[in-house]
Amino acid sequence: MTGRADRGPAPRRSQAPRARTGRRAGDSGTREAILQAARLQFADRGYDGATIRAIAAAAAVDPALVHHFYGTKERLFAAAMRLPFVPSEVITAALTEGGHADGGSVGEHMVKTALTVWDNAGVRAAFVGILRSALTSEQAATMLREFITEAILRPVAAVASDTDPERTPFRSSLVGSQMLGLALTRYVVQLGPLAVAAPDELAAAIGPTIDRYLTGDLGPAAGR
Amino acid sequence: MTGRADRGPAPRRSQAPRARTGRRAGDSGTREAILQAARLQFADRGYDGATIRAIAAAAAVDPALVHHFYGTKERLFAAAMRLPFVPSEVITAALTEGGHADGGSVGEHMVKTALTVWDNAGVRAAFVGILRSALTSEQAATMLREFITEAILRPVAAVASDTDPERTPFRSSLVGSQMLGLALTRYVVQLGPLAVAAPDELAAAIGPTIDRYLTGDLGPAAGR
Repeated sequence: MTGRADRGPAPRRSQAPRARTGRRAGDSGTREAILQAARLQFADRGYDGATIRAIAAAAAVDPALVHHFYGTKERLFAAAMRLPFVPSEVITAALTEGGHADGGSVGEHMVKTALTVWDNAGVRAAFVGILRSALTSEQAATMLREFITEAILRPVAAVASDTDPERTPFRSSLVGSQMLGLALTRYVVQLGPLAVAAPDELAAAIGPTIDRYLTGDLGPAAGR
Repeated sequence: MTGRADRGPAPRRSQAPRARTGRRAGDSGTREAILQAARLQFADRGYDGATIRAIAAAAAVDPALVHHFYGTKERLFAAAMRLPFVPSEVITAALTEGGHADGGSVGEHMVKTALTVWDNAGVRAAFVGILRSALTSEQAATMLREFITEAILRPVAAVASDTDPERTPFRSSLVGSQMLGLALTRYVVQLGPLAVAAPDELAAAIGPTIDRYLTGDLGPAAGR
C-alpha cells in the first residue's frame, strides 16, 4: 500500500533481532518526541491550527527534520494517531479510475477499500480511540472534524457531481455519514449480520448509496 | 408523544414549588433505587440477560412495583439510560402508514422523526453517553448491541421486504448503520453541511437510502 503513515523503517520488517546503533536509537527517540508534540498540538489547536513549525519547536527539532520524517501534516497526524495508513491516499486510490478496474462502481470500490483497511486491528483500535476522544472532549471532536474535512471529504468531493458545486460539501458529508456509520456498526456495536457480512456483500448493498450521494439525485436543496 | 420513557409524574410538569409528601418522596426514592439497580444489571448482564425480577431484588422491591412504574424492560432501560422516549414506540409510529401521511416515503419519515427526537439536548447527551460507554467497555457495547437489536431492529424488520426473510436482519442493520452514522456525523463530529442541514433536506437525501435498505435491491447475498 502506498498509504502507510510512516515511511520510516517498519519495526517488524525483519523478525530477527538487530543490534541497535546509536543513530537508530536517536532516530526513534526523536520521532517519538515529534509524535508526542504533534499529539499535544493537534489536541490543543485542532487539525487546522496545528503547524509543523510549532510542533518542531515543541519537540526541540528543526522543522526540516519533521518534513524529512513525515512529509506532510496529514502524514504526521496519521502517524501521531497511530493510523497505519494515510486516509487521503487510500481514498484517492479507491476513487481513481484505475482503482476500480474490477468493474464495480466508485461507491462499491470505496466500501471494499475501507473494509480492507479497517480489517487491520491497529486501524480499528485507532478509530475507536479517536472516536472515544471526540465523544469526551469538544477539542478532540473539533480535531476529528477538521481532519475528516481536509483528508477525507476533500478527495471525496473531487469525484462528486459538479453540476451544483455548492452542494459538493453536502454530498461528501453524506458519504462520511454512511462510512462512519458502517465502521461504528460493524466494529464497535457489531450489529447482527453487518458485523460478519463479506466485504463483497456490503459493497453491493452500500456501494449504490455512496454512488447516489456522490452524483445522484438528492432532492431539492433547502431554501432554493 | 406516546413514547415517553417514564409514565410517572414528570418532575417539571409544574414549575411551581410543591410541598413534598411522604408518599411522593418515597416514590421518588424507590424509583431512583430501581433505576440504579437497573443500570448495574444492564451493565453486568447485558440487555438480554437483565431481568425485571433480578432488578427488583437488587432494589429490594417487589417486581410488581417495577412493572407498575415502568411497564416493560425496554421502558425501564430507556428510563435508566435517561432517554426521554421509548425507541420502539417512536420507530413504530414513524413506520406505520398513519405516521407518514404527509406523502413522504417510509425512509423520509424515519429520518424526519429521528431528527425531531434527536433535536432534544437530553437525547443527544444520552446518545453520546451510551456510545462513549460502548467505546470503552465490551460489556457496554454488548448491552447497546442487544438493545438496538431488540428495540430498534425488530420494529424496522417488520416493514422490511419479506420476499427473502433470511435477509431481513441484514436490511435492518443497514438501516441502523446509516441512522447511527447520521447521528454521529450530525451531533458528535458535526461534519460540515450535514450538521446544519434542515430536516427536510436530510430526509430527501437519506430517505431513499433507508427505503432501498428496507425493500430495494441489495445485490446478491453472500454464498448463494
